[in-house]
Amino acid sequence: EDSYFGSYSHFGIHREMLQDKVRTDAYRDFMMSNKALFHGKIVLDVGCGTGILSMIAAQCGAKKVIGVDNSKVLYNAMEIVRENKLESTVTLIKGKIEDVHLPVQKVDIIISEWMGYFLLFESMLESVLFARDRWLSPGGKVFPDKFSIHVAAFDDEKMWKSHIGYWDDVYGFQMGCMKKAATAEAVIATVNSEAVLTDSCLVKTIDVESISEKELDFESDFQLKVLRTGSCAGLVGYFDVEFNGDNAKIAFSCSPSSTPTHWQQTVFFLPKPTITSQGDIIKGKIACKRNHRALEVDVTICSGLGKDYSLKYYVQ
Amino acid sequence: EDSYFGSYSHFGIHREMLQDKVRTDAYRDFMMSNKALFHGKIVLDVGCGTGILSMIAAQCGAKKVIGVDNSKVLYNAMEIVRENKLESTVTLIKGKIEDVHLPVQKVDIIISEWMGYFLLFESMLESVLFARDRWLSPGGKVFPDKFSIHVAAFDDEKMWKSHIGYWDDVYGFQMGCMKKAATAEAVIATVNSEAVLTDSCLVKTIDVESISEKELDFESDFQLKVLRTGSCAGLVGYFDVEFNGDNAKIAFSCSPSSTPTHWQQTVFFLPKPTITSQGDIIKGKIACKRNHRALEVDVTICSGLGKDYSLKYYVQ
Repeated sequence: EDSYFGSYSHFGIHREMLQDKVRTDAYRDFMMSNKALFHGKIVLDVGCGTGILSMIAAQCGAKKVIGVDNSKVLYNAMEIVRENKLESTVTLIKGKIEDVHLPVQKVDIIISEWMGYFLLFESMLESVLFARDRWLSPGGKVFPDKFSIHVAAFDDEKMWKSHIGYWDDVYGFQMGCMKKAATAEAVIATVNSEAVLTDSCLVKTIDVESISEKELDFESDFQLKVLRTGSCAGLVGYFDVEFNGDNAKIAFSCSPSSTPTHWQQTVFFLPKPTITSQGDIIKGKIACKRNHRALEVDVTICSGLGKDYSLKYYVQ
Repeated sequence: EDSYFGSYSHFGIHREMLQDKVRTDAYRDFMMSNKALFHGKIVLDVGCGTGILSMIAAQCGAKKVIGVDNSKVLYNAMEIVRENKLESTVTLIKGKIEDVHLPVQKVDIIISEWMGYFLLFESMLESVLFARDRWLSPGGKVFPDKFSIHVAAFDDEKMWKSHIGYWDDVYGFQMGCMKKAATAEAVIATVNSEAVLTDSCLVKTIDVESISEKELDFESDFQLKVLRTGSCAGLVGYFDVEFNGDNAKIAFSCSPSSTPTHWQQTVFFLPKPTITSQGDIIKGKIACKRNHRALEVDVTICSGLGKDYSLKYYVQ
């Protein structure tokens, strides 16, 4: 756990997150266009990092902003808040949200950028739910508030070969066991929108204001309509994010057809690319559960790809 | 330490290393073109990973090859060796080289791919030196055998701005302390060969057959001749690798003018880009020491950049 929080004091990671314009613009645009929501309010920023969201909330009229983070970057955030003369509004606390004592009874709004790969990998969502249950006043709001996870099928023979087929012949050696192991490892990568073969299927929605921790593990059937004939290399998973403000709604998507984010997409390769024809329906089931630091994703496919598949993946 | 060895069981990492053709081709070409050296010999592969180098050594006529690795990928390597029917020649042992007992008295040749960023970051060189002192027979060989570390100055305003200048204005906020911290963090990146402003200066050579562990920390003066007027963004560090076989010598370089490798280059940014003129000589000193998992690199510059610098970096 030390190394997890330690790694977030690598400054390059914070730069990459801040420079992800899709991500940071969405938070800023949401707050800037919903100033009435923040005016005079007490705001809690869970996992505040460099403090950027806390400072924007202060700029948008919050009476008091409390940022909490257990990474050493919090010490930098303290200096940043002073550099920007916001220390009378923004209070920063180093620690886990589960352990710290806030200098208020309750907060009016929780903001957090907790999302991980495939939304739920190494995410801080549990911490946000803890903060909601412990610190949010009745009728309080959490932003972003709504999330959805989607899957589609794609073809990209070259990508499949580079990641999976590669192990069939490594400098003349067979590495079949690596091929099997590599297939089970979900890959974080950017899938070309033109490689998408099917429509998308929504497999999970999360309303942060009401979901419970045990509902984070999910199981869902999916149906994907094949839009053109191609060689299916696997499934691509991604998530969408919504901020439903009173005044303006802001959303962004991590889908292959949207501007790439640092979350990219999550790829679940098939053991072997499989031809699928326009008009076919790929039917299956996806189950996702948290297991320590990894996400376990079970995918079964029961029609549309010529044969049945029952595959186990890890996002790690 | 668990997580270090754990991370190497992410299969993507092994694929990336194997797919680094400059790296893997060099090892293969060296062994293939020096078969007489390997014929009938006992070979030890320190940090054998998937076992690729062990298997090539077996193919090149080694009588016995012992591969040692403490990562879980060793279990895959065992299966790979069987898949390729080399189990009568290649023996794999899971453990730290410092702890394991080999089934031989001594070995004739040690091979290892131990190199890290800026050569010495998180490298297994200490383990290779341990193996040399404990297990290599008198007159035995270690490959690759010679390494050198070099620095040059470069200009790339865009790269400097993206990594360092960025912190001056992050969505309208000043983050001066992050700028300072980011400057101290050496960046692993590929520097365009056209961005190099000066000749290169050799700052360290390593002869693996004779160097001692305490000689790995080093200090060296450098002089860089400015080949064209430009705005120096910092120093770029890289390393070269040599296999001096009896029959054929193989070498590769990780310099900006060579085919990129997964090691890329290591960039030490200046706090501010500084004009330097053709014909100037940039003079300074670099000191590099291992500090737990990080490398501490101290750079002083005493002429050629208008002002003196005394900078501390971490490769981490």
